[in-house]
Amino acid sequence: MSTPSLLILPGDGIGPEVMAEVVKIIDWYGEKRDLKFDVTMDLVGGAAYDKHGVPLADETMAKAQEVDAVLLGAVGGPKYDVLDFSVKPERGLLRLRKEMDLFANLRPAQCFDALADFSSLKKDVVAGLDIMIVRELTSGIYFGEPRGIITEGNERVGINTQRYTESEIRRVAIAAFELAMKRGKKLCSMEKANVMESGILWREVVEEVAKDYPEVAVSHMYADNGAMQLVRAPKQFDVIVTDNLFGDILSDCAAMLTGSLGMLPSASLGAPMENGRPKAMYEPVHGSAPDIAGQGKANPIACILSFAMALRYSFDQGDEATRLETAIEKVLADGVRTGDLLADEGVTPVSTSGMGDAIIAAL
Amino acid sequence: MSTPSLLILPGDGIGPEVMAEVVKIIDWYGEKRDLKFDVTMDLVGGAAYDKHGVPLADETMAKAQEVDAVLLGAVGGPKYDVLDFSVKPERGLLRLRKEMDLFANLRPAQCFDALADFSSLKKDVVAGLDIMIVRELTSGIYFGEPRGIITEGNERVGINTQRYTESEIRRVAIAAFELAMKRGKKLCSMEKANVMESGILWREVVEEVAKDYPEVAVSHMYADNGAMQLVRAPKQFDVIVTDNLFGDILSDCAAMLTGSLGMLPSASLGAPMENGRPKAMYEPVHGSAPDIAGQGKANPIACILSFAMALRYSFDQGDEATRLETAIEKVLADGVRTGDLLADEGVTPVSTSGMGDAIIAAL
Ligand SMILES: CC(C)[C@H](C(=O)O)[C@@H](O)C(=O)O
Ligand SMILES: CC(C)[C@H](C(=O)O)[C@@H](O)C(=O)O
Repeated sequence: MSTPSLLILPGDGIGPEVMAEVVKIIDWYGEKRDLKFDVTMDLVGGAAYDKHGVPLADETMAKAQEVDAVLLGAVGGPKYDVLDFSVKPERGLLRLRKEMDLFANLRPAQCFDALADFSSLKKDVVAGLDIMIVRELTSGIYFGEPRGIITEGNERVGINTQRYTESEIRRVAIAAFELAMKRGKKLCSMEKANVMESGILWREVVEEVAKDYPEVAVSHMYADNGAMQLVRAPKQFDVIVTDNLFGDILSDCAAMLTGSLGMLPSASLGAPMENGRPKAMYEPVHGSAPDIAGQGKANPIACILSFAMALRYSFDQGDEATRLETAIEKVLADGVRTGDLLADEGVTPVSTSGMGDAIIAAL
Repeated sequence: MSTPSLLILPGDGIGPEVMAEVVKIIDWYGEKRDLKFDVTMDLVGGAAYDKHGVPLADETMAKAQEVDAVLLGAVGGPKYDVLDFSVKPERGLLRLRKEMDLFANLRPAQCFDALADFSSLKKDVVAGLDIMIVRELTSGIYFGEPRGIITEGNERVGINTQRYTESEIRRVAIAAFELAMKRGKKLCSMEKANVMESGILWREVVEEVAKDYPEVAVSHMYADNGAMQLVRAPKQFDVIVTDNLFGDILSDCAAMLTGSLGMLPSASLGAPMENGRPKAMYEPVHGSAPDIAGQGKANPIACILSFAMALRYSFDQGDEATRLETAIEKVLADGVRTGDLLADEGVTPVSTSGMGDAIIAAL
């Protein structure tokens, strides 16, 4: 089998500094475990706009289609707020998702024991929390047409369209059921079927797919109640499946429950390629955090755990993924902390690269 | 001035039993404070469907347009899940909102001192919390056309449309700024302008309206970050203004933060009528809770506080509203609790009507 290929897009803000630590880890795997990757680095978001005038160059897009997996840091920053909608940093990210057809966005919300105190929620509500949110990522109101700002009479009207086909719903539902089978066999689907017809279709298709997974306990919840239940008693959930927009909001809400935002990775998966691997992009859940960028303060763990997800989902290296995750747990248990996690006594504060080094030492 | 008129729609589930306590309070005001209301009772939701085959009869709709204010309990229940979309209990509620043009939905998220321990959040994160969410209620994806489930090729497609005109955004923004002026002079507007053109227009119009309120500190946040920030540090907010769908989710999230879901009222306001009063409907934030309906367990306070909001916003009786709110605080401070709030030691458990009686005694 040829050397697996990776396209690394560090992006903006803290993206480059957290990704630098991932690169160290990748190098370690090449040297110590003979697990080599063919790595290409390129630009996305504001960084790409600065060089090319667009947030993702066509050559970068083409490269993303070719490689076995993409690792992305983060995009966006206040400097780019003034840009036209069509060239904002986010458009680069959305183009990758859409053109690679990465329909299933896996967002684990996990509360790390050593960090449960950082949650704004009571410890018993979140300790041991381990949810997987599966968010549809290539359709819905993010991409539906018609869209835009038009003029009607003497005023402007802003329009976006939520649009879901049965097959779009079915494929992400299947991905969620497959995950549920490997986890706690419990799936909750969230929509607003009481208000939106697209939610009615969503619920119907999830019910249809459920017939093929009789072992999975399925429930349905309105998304507003879902937000409430996530805050009230998040441990009632195992796998949650929901659409693009609800997934955006609910997964951020769930991520914040854990108190470990700097710790949470994500995987965006598409259909299998010729080599059997799914099209895939991996990125931390946190944003580009422009306020602390370039200061060595950022926590690289979310980005490193995103690479662990790549080992597991793209490269069939579940054992190596577990090795990396275990190393991270050890480092945290030893009290090594970046600035986002410093409230405890008796911890050792480290910089972004200090954290990367500590993880490599633990490997 | 003629006797002010009220249309009371108890609805489904716990609606009738919590509304019965409001009726007691209304009677008390008539007898003891000579504040009389001309009250009509009618049906909405499943209760209306059972009698009329529709979740809101035309005569009820006509009556709602005539009265000075509507009080609504709650709608919905499992019995009605099988009904066609067009006659589901929720359609009755949505028809009232739309035809009365109640564009500004005021949802206070307030943490009551005596109840801060009920929150799943740490006490210091929520104690003293007092946010007002202003949700646009008559437009957006709830009502936009085209909508429905169509067939394209050999599959079905679910479609909903988000649609906001400048004037729809402007009027709810003005309502929010006016409230901010009476409160902490801080307003945060939430949308997804990084992804949706309707969000771009939303942000632009809010910025325009802001020029007329130079004293109000305005900020803008993406709705996903808004959900995060509500969980992380809700006290950073004073007034939040957002669209119909984001408002649905974010206000439920905010309500749950307080731990006092059975305590939260809401007001839905429209344009002024000929008599100067705004078109108005008042309802508790909680739902119909079919699991405890008819057992005398429900907490009537949210519904009673909704009547207090009616006193304030519809009937210019701010002092009487404060009297009622103070009575409720006293009862809670005395340790009187319905079943939803029983974890503390040294409290006196009461039924729904026991709570109503205690509040009247405190008045
Ligand atoms: C950056 C933005 C376009 C993106 C989204 O809305 O999907 C982000 O919030 C996310 O969740 O990945
Ligand atoms: C019952 C339902 C239609 C309603 C809504 O979605 O607006 C409810 O959730 C609310 O927030 O008042």
